[in-house]
Amino acid sequence: MSKKNKKPQKLKARLPRGFVDRSADDIRAVNSMMAKISEVYERYGFDPVETPMFEYTDCLGKFLPDSDRPNEGVFSLTDDDQWMSLRYDLTAPLARHVAENYNDITLPYRTYRAGYVFRNEKPGPGRFRQFMQFDADTVGAPGVQADAEMCMMMADVMEALGIKRGDYVIRVNNRKVLDGVMEAIGLGGDENAEKRLNVLRAIDKLDRLGVEGVRELLGEGRVDESGDRTEGVGLPDISINVIIEFLQKQNFFKDLDDEKYSGRLMGAPSKNKPINYFGLFQAMRGGAKELLEMNKIFESCGYERNRIVVDQACVRGLEYYTGPVFEAELTFPVTNEKGQEVVFGSVGGGGRYDGLVSRFMGQPVPATGFSIGVSRLMTALKNLGKLDTAKTLAPVLVTVMDGDAMGQYQSYVQQLRNAGIRAEMYQGNWKKFPNQLRYADKRDCPIVIIQGSDERDAGKIQLKDMIEGKRQAAAIESNEAYRAARPGQFEIEEDDLVAEVQKLLAEQGE
Amino acid sequence: MSKKNKKPQKLKARLPRGFVDRSADDIRAVNSMMAKISEVYERYGFDPVETPMFEYTDCLGKFLPDSDRPNEGVFSLTDDDQWMSLRYDLTAPLARHVAENYNDITLPYRTYRAGYVFRNEKPGPGRFRQFMQFDADTVGAPGVQADAEMCMMMADVMEALGIKRGDYVIRVNNRKVLDGVMEAIGLGGDENAEKRLNVLRAIDKLDRLGVEGVRELLGEGRVDESGDRTEGVGLPDISINVIIEFLQKQNFFKDLDDEKYSGRLMGAPSKNKPINYFGLFQAMRGGAKELLEMNKIFESCGYERNRIVVDQACVRGLEYYTGPVFEAELTFPVTNEKGQEVVFGSVGGGGRYDGLVSRFMGQPVPATGFSIGVSRLMTALKNLGKLDTAKTLAPVLVTVMDGDAMGQYQSYVQQLRNAGIRAEMYQGNWKKFPNQLRYADKRDCPIVIIQGSDERDAGKIQLKDMIEGKRQAAAIESNEAYRAARPGQFEIEEDDLVAEVQKLLAEQGE
Repeated sequence: MSKKNKKPQKLKARLPRGFVDRSADDIRAVNSMMAKISEVYERYGFDPVETPMFEYTDCLGKFLPDSDRPNEGVFSLTDDDQWMSLRYDLTAPLARHVAENYNDITLPYRTYRAGYVFRNEKPGPGRFRQFMQFDADTVGAPGVQADAEMCMMMADVMEALGIKRGDYVIRVNNRKVLDGVMEAIGLGGDENAEKRLNVLRAIDKLDRLGVEGVRELLGEGRVDESGDRTEGVGLPDISINVIIEFLQKQNFFKDLDDEKYSGRLMGAPSKNKPINYFGLFQAMRGGAKELLEMNKIFESCGYERNRIVVDQACVRGLEYYTGPVFEAELTFPVTNEKGQEVVFGSVGGGGRYDGLVSRFMGQPVPATGFSIGVSRLMTALKNLGKLDTAKTLAPVLVTVMDGDAMGQYQSYVQQLRNAGIRAEMYQGNWKKFPNQLRYADKRDCPIVIIQGSDERDAGKIQLKDMIEGKRQAAAIESNEAYRAARPGQFEIEEDDLVAEVQKLLAEQGE
Repeated sequence: MSKKNKKPQKLKARLPRGFVDRSADDIRAVNSMMAKISEVYERYGFDPVETPMFEYTDCLGKFLPDSDRPNEGVFSLTDDDQWMSLRYDLTAPLARHVAENYNDITLPYRTYRAGYVFRNEKPGPGRFRQFMQFDADTVGAPGVQADAEMCMMMADVMEALGIKRGDYVIRVNNRKVLDGVMEAIGLGGDENAEKRLNVLRAIDKLDRLGVEGVRELLGEGRVDESGDRTEGVGLPDISINVIIEFLQKQNFFKDLDDEKYSGRLMGAPSKNKPINYFGLFQAMRGGAKELLEMNKIFESCGYERNRIVVDQACVRGLEYYTGPVFEAELTFPVTNEKGQEVVFGSVGGGGRYDGLVSRFMGQPVPATGFSIGVSRLMTALKNLGKLDTAKTLAPVLVTVMDGDAMGQYQSYVQQLRNAGIRAEMYQGNWKKFPNQLRYADKRDCPIVIIQGSDERDAGKIQLKDMIEGKRQAAAIESNEAYRAARPGQFEIEEDDLVAEVQKLLAEQGE
């Protein structure tokens, strides 16, 4: 037998790609952000409701844009011979929830929920396979006044987070208008449903890829910088031109409430035979009428055009939308990974999905809602310096100098805690005292408690003011001098511990 | 072709077994409960950190008690040819997190986290396949003072939630003591690891199954009331008797700090050959010493024996514990599904797991922590009437009487919201007005705003006090009289809307 020193194979600690851990600062900041969002939702009369992570795959449906992975971008597994999937959004599960509990629910049903969703996609920079959404939905609301309310609520959320007017805009469109364009280029009918969806998804990338990128996606396809090829929709040039022209029309909807303008627009005749302008007209009219109604509500409620604006390039990449769609976009510039200056872009959106609940019901159940991408929004607030990063004060550290006195040290800690002061006893290997001070330093402890056996016998405790200590230490030159000076350190009576710590914390806070 | 009226196959809205939706009341109550728990964790010097739902299966390890399902009770799927699993607890992922970020982490590392975990188990009443845990852990803390702190923190959590002394107890034991028992009956050594674990899991069911149930599980196996058979450990009677005797010893650890007693106990000789009392003695001594040290800390800090108690039947069913283990048990009686009165039982627990981080490291990284079962605890608080069920006030409802005035109605709502008042416009089919009042009634709206075209032209608004209205309505006999009387309803100036609503809400709150 060889006695070679073979290292045992160690298990490698690693996370699957596209999944991340969250730090204390991030968690606290997100919690504070989400509390502000909840406050707006609650004020608007929404109540929380939550569904689990798993649904039966058939209940979720296949509404996901990305299909470069098995299971159409969803994490799925079988359970007792039925396929279950992790939810990819919070809307499809809500539809299942409403249908399952239809008889117990009072309509209109106004609810909100935050939760993780999962996408089995190719991970990339800033693209995660688990991320948090924060949704609000109204089920059983047939009119566009419900959609208008969603847009105003998104605007109010932005402002509640400190994003000022001009730094955000809510873009609004209507799927019926887009359906008109589809109809016009001969993509109407059930048999073209998938093609239509692919067109929408191509349009949805206008922000990121520009006109030429969209043109490629609508035609033969596109090869990105990493060499990955995305299949194109394969439309003929003449159809692509109609779509691009539609997207590029300046002020397309700006004057929608000018009846003459919209009439001219919708009825616009053409000599170009392959374009079915009658279809365009028919379908668009419904969508345009709804957009006009929504605009009236925005005006009555004082939401000016610089806050909520109609934009024909706003499409949303999900299949299930049936009417108004909307998107919250942040318009301030940021520098992307390639060093280019771009607008921050979308942090959430939604729309009307009248078919999603009815799939289960055999009767129409209209619904509308939106979703906020929590991590995206957090990144945006970081960029704006609006993220609530107020540090939680680190605990007071009770150090250990004598292994026999653990009970006593811990009792000091408990006294402090019972007085509402954040405190802990050093729980590492206490035998090297400088390690304890180093720990206090790294952890930003404001005060350190020290008691050796001499002090204990005398009923005394040493308090070290870490902030004052650091200030004084800056002026001390040698290690020896430092140790002799004990900067910021003073002795108190054991019985005065809580009062003295409270006093010192108050002074430090001034 | 037959023209039979064939109903189309409708999609059935349903959740997979073992998964549930959460109501508004539950969500609000749990949030309030969790805020109280966080407050204790923070006071103890712990900071939040979170990991994602997925881990590579090899990083999680196989530490789950139930293996009546494929993948040893875990939900798993392959990703790029590697197995990933949904976390089954929050401890194994924390170990991965610490190992992966070891160089950036200051030890001891005190953290807490709440999150959903998943078990691919047979669902049963009150047994879910997705549930929430709320954990606290200290990594890099070798001494039992860290374990003792965990026990005290669990006790403080119970009290912060309003569970009074006597209604809860923290049970403490040490795996080393149990290892002694195993050693004694010849189950020492790596080759018996699985058997030892099965013995622990059998003991863990003492509460639920009683002595005879545990005896069956240690021996030939057990058939439960549903006819399901659980395989037994297959120990000989002589070994089973040692375990049962150990479990039944009254006051086994009560006098652990009486050195004479524990010496007598641990050194107890026997004529019975198959029992290796030397092994029992050797292994137990270490565990007993640690329990004594912990007891000293509990005493110094004023945690009496009725709050934290050593109990040899406390084992915890997970394989990874290496030293002290502890459990928070609620001792008040509840009636179970069979109508029997039982103690409520465990709501959380934990222990020392010195091997879990080191698996990745090639160096020892001691750690200890515990987990609270959030749903179990919520059920317990419900039973005790200690759950914070303060209702959020329902919104003020602005009704719709005129489709052309949607903008105006919505602007009233926005005025109220801007003043911080929860409000909504009716978003259902508004044409049947009684439906709107019925909605307000079901939703418990405190005030309803009504404005027809006459009132609008006159700049007036009708306010309906729903609480006063209900009171008056009780005395009105006919529907006609009710409609004529308009109970609780009065007219105000449009401009006074916010002020009048504020005034009325204040009056209602008195």
